[in-house]
Amino acid sequence: MSRLDSAIRRLQAQRACLGHAADIIEGRGGGERVDGVVLELGLGNGRTYDHLREILPDRTIYVFDRQLAAHPDCRPDDDRLFLGEMASTLPHAAARLPAPAALAHLDIGSGEIPETERNIAGVEPPLLAMLAAGGMVVSDQPLPTLARSAGIDAVGPPPEVADGRYFLYRRAKL
Amino acid sequence: MSRLDSAIRRLQAQRACLGHAADIIEGRGGGERVDGVVLELGLGNGRTYDHLREILPDRTIYVFDRQLAAHPDCRPDDDRLFLGEMASTLPHAAARLPAPAALAHLDIGSGEIPETERNIAGVEPPLLAMLAAGGMVVSDQPLPTLARSAGIDAVGPPPEVADGRYFLYRRAKL
Repeated sequence: MSRLDSAIRRLQAQRACLGHAADIIEGRGGGERVDGVVLELGLGNGRTYDHLREILPDRTIYVFDRQLAAHPDCRPDDDRLFLGEMASTLPHAAARLPAPAALAHLDIGSGEIPETERNIAGVEPPLLAMLAAGGMVVSDQPLPTLARSAGIDAVGPPPEVADGRYFLYRRAKL
Repeated sequence: MSRLDSAIRRLQAQRACLGHAADIIEGRGGGERVDGVVLELGLGNGRTYDHLREILPDRTIYVFDRQLAAHPDCRPDDDRLFLGEMASTLPHAAARLPAPAALAHLDIGSGEIPETERNIAGVEPPLLAMLAAGGMVVSDQPLPTLARSAGIDAVGPPPEVADGRYFLYRRAKL
């Protein structure tokens, strides 16, 4: 499989997993709606932020990244943007957000393993503290601390996505 | 359509058009094989270069870009890589390549219109001089000089690709 094939599959998996998680928190397909905000951890060029605001138009999305590199039309308002190390900005934001997170999307793989592991280790504790009951996490990386936490369940990807490409978790409802 | 949807469509169109052009120059589906090398104009991260060497394993691929930014495993050997302004490197290469080009893939849109137009204007004359009879051009940008040139025909995209997303041209056979 070429890198072009692989890029197409990765983006299709991303879209399918975000759509799946959005359906769950909106209560489409039977379950109850989960109230709360959306966290976009890793804005990058803003592609998935743009997608999230399209598929979840009624949710407030808060965005976290080390620095701002997104297309000008894919940038959130300043009061919804937290720049800097997520290990610092997430706890800071947690104290200020109006509600816990119904959905968090993590795109935090840096291409380098030590840096990615540092990112994950810094993000997991505040994320755990911010996730609503019934809330979903969609991640490009496996999240070992989340996976081990009481009340957090791994969720299978939608059927069109290969195992191990994306990682979904959910906090059990109260 | 979100930027995520749009990125998926763009990469799918790229893959479909490269596959279509490869089929034509290989003579799959009925026509005669077109001898010659492949030119990759705009290496970027190396994604389509990686795809071209997968779908055309028997062709020599020459790569042109302003600077080298590709993944280490998507870089051609030094003797097949020409770095600098394509308006200069293409004529330089043309005098040294072993054969005319059976396929040229252009990914030269820079996101800024004046720069893209300069790129196109610099690339078209040497490209015209290097294209084999029967050779294909696949481009992310319309190529006005090529389109007006005697013996060059616009080719429709494969059926799954929307009109105006990718631009295909072919030099008539002798």
